[in-house]
Amino acid sequence: MKAIVNQKNFKKALGIVEKVVAKNTTLPILSNILFKTENGRLKLSATNLEIGINYTIGAKIEEVGQVAVPARIISDFTNNINDEKIALIVKNNVLSVNSEHYKTQILGLDAKDFPIIPKIKNKPLATIPIKILRNSALLVVDSIALSEARPELAGIYVNFENDKIIFASTDSFRLTEKQIDFKHSLKNSFIIPRNTALELVRVAGELEGEIVINISDNQVSFSSDDFEMVSRLVDGNYPDYKKVIPDKFISKVLVNKNDLEKNIRLAGLFSSNISDVKIQCLETKTNITAKNPDRGEIETDIPSTLKNQPFEIAVNYHYLIDGLKIIDTNEVVIEYTGQGSPIVIKPGDNRKDLVYLIMPLRK
Amino acid sequence: MKAIVNQKNFKKALGIVEKVVAKNTTLPILSNILFKTENGRLKLSATNLEIGINYTIGAKIEEVGQVAVPARIISDFTNNINDEKIALIVKNNVLSVNSEHYKTQILGLDAKDFPIIPKIKNKPLATIPIKILRNSALLVVDSIALSEARPELAGIYVNFENDKIIFASTDSFRLTEKQIDFKHSLKNSFIIPRNTALELVRVAGELEGEIVINISDNQVSFSSDDFEMVSRLVDGNYPDYKKVIPDKFISKVLVNKNDLEKNIRLAGLFSSNISDVKIQCLETKTNITAKNPDRGEIETDIPSTLKNQPFEIAVNYHYLIDGLKIIDTNEVVIEYTGQGSPIVIKPGDNRKDLVYLIMPLRK
Repeated sequence: MKAIVNQKNFKKALGIVEKVVAKNTTLPILSNILFKTENGRLKLSATNLEIGINYTIGAKIEEVGQVAVPARIISDFTNNINDEKIALIVKNNVLSVNSEHYKTQILGLDAKDFPIIPKIKNKPLATIPIKILRNSALLVVDSIALSEARPELAGIYVNFENDKIIFASTDSFRLTEKQIDFKHSLKNSFIIPRNTALELVRVAGELEGEIVINISDNQVSFSSDDFEMVSRLVDGNYPDYKKVIPDKFISKVLVNKNDLEKNIRLAGLFSSNISDVKIQCLETKTNITAKNPDRGEIETDIPSTLKNQPFEIAVNYHYLIDGLKIIDTNEVVIEYTGQGSPIVIKPGDNRKDLVYLIMPLRK
Repeated sequence: MKAIVNQKNFKKALGIVEKVVAKNTTLPILSNILFKTENGRLKLSATNLEIGINYTIGAKIEEVGQVAVPARIISDFTNNINDEKIALIVKNNVLSVNSEHYKTQILGLDAKDFPIIPKIKNKPLATIPIKILRNSALLVVDSIALSEARPELAGIYVNFENDKIIFASTDSFRLTEKQIDFKHSLKNSFIIPRNTALELVRVAGELEGEIVINISDNQVSFSSDDFEMVSRLVDGNYPDYKKVIPDKFISKVLVNKNDLEKNIRLAGLFSSNISDVKIQCLETKTNITAKNPDRGEIETDIPSTLKNQPFEIAVNYHYLIDGLKIIDTNEVVIEYTGQGSPIVIKPGDNRKDLVYLIMPLRK
């Protein structure tokens, strides 16, 4: 193989694929990146056997070929040089990386030993702008269950239904649901594993344009012209979470999101227990207090607009802060649905595309 | 006590004193900051029994008094509010911290239980600009011995001699010496413990003007109008390190500092052993190579100017990178003093106020 690449493009490509390189693996080949000439371009591939990424860049290909090389060393080297052009030459599984100021030889492995990243041969399921996919995944990613106790909760539920794509996640303490409009009406759903969702959010920040979603029985792929990410899907049926979201409220409050978040954080300083922080939504203000026998106490209030009766928000305040973080409006609506029932958080502009719900504290 | 302070000043003062607050201590009072009215101002004090800091800020004192309060909570609170004025009111060892939007009460401890930070009553030893003190300490701090095997090496040696103040440190693998001019001729020397030196460098970045150095048999203080830091001194006699610094060289090379540092770093990627990296100073260039049977190899060179015979720098390359970092000129001089003798690094402009020396590798 002999290929000449632009340093900036090559650096970007390494950045995109290297994060899925397996760390501390017993299979040494998985800590490598596969370099392969393909249709007059250079394809970089990495996989940890759960997620695989291919990314292709323009290159001047003088000789076709392939090699697998340790990700760490080629990436550290490329990130630390400024020479514009890099020549990649493979002989006997040794990759020579040469530029104006540097000559290196990196010992690689036979490309034939690199695991095959599967292709999904079904017809594409949907094509959506990558920014919208990223934003939706980003909103729901924090509520994914960390524990594998219920494996089906350890991922993002993606549900195509009635001209909508619904992204949902819950760890059974809180739940996030984001809906986006979708031009075609189709019925399908799957669960993306947490790590895949995190990688997708990370890598999508580097990409532009549209992304094609493709699924098989147990795999999903996200692909564009240059990029492809393939992952296993979570096995199992997502619970019928819709029935947990209350359709009516008893009272609700409209309050400035940043002020509320800040005051809850400050109250958190005076608490050693989640139940130390009390949030009371009154006629014209929201009162936040915390009292702890070892630390002291704090009292703050911010103006707010109440509908119906005053109420107290009795939830884990950390989850409330998480919920406020994903609201993209200056004001936030908090709905009270009764004692022992969840608290519902929505954007302040009455949009219905984003719902965050916190289960009540058990006493 | 009742004192009104400006939030920005108070935040700065907390930042200066809180870093010496003891962590994980068995003496709970040491995790507190002492607040005390003094001469119409407010004094904040913290100590970990090895280092003590006092810092005084302007305040409107309405009632004199004092209290000790957990550093973490008052500092987190103050850093997270924007209200301009803060009222500090003490009753029964409870500190009320009130501002426009917040009312808090922080449980404190009796100020009488707070350890006394000693005062050194001797005549001041020297007064020097704080920026010069900080810069000198910063240059030598990395060569201080981390091990306490030889306690006298675990600090910065400060030596007043012949119109100079000399700062030196060595961990017996490398040695740094920085000299500054001093208007008075006096003879005195002491060893500042490593932690004190690190704190001094940190805190001096926040201060301006001149600093008064004061010593007793076993303590040193650094003080200005608002600020005072008192520390124990390292016991023992500093070794006669001067005899290790060669006064002649066999060959020397003049080379661009940043290019050399970068190329050594890149070569380091291809080494798993410090002796994998070879630096050869030839007639017109400096050749850097590394070869490792598991990773591969690299070859780079940069133009350089040689005096006398070509030589090889056979040292731990990490120490060489550390040395290049403290050189403040674009070019650096590296002196070869014979096989088995140290390598000497100096600024490229022939200044003699800064010397960094690396002991040769033992084969």
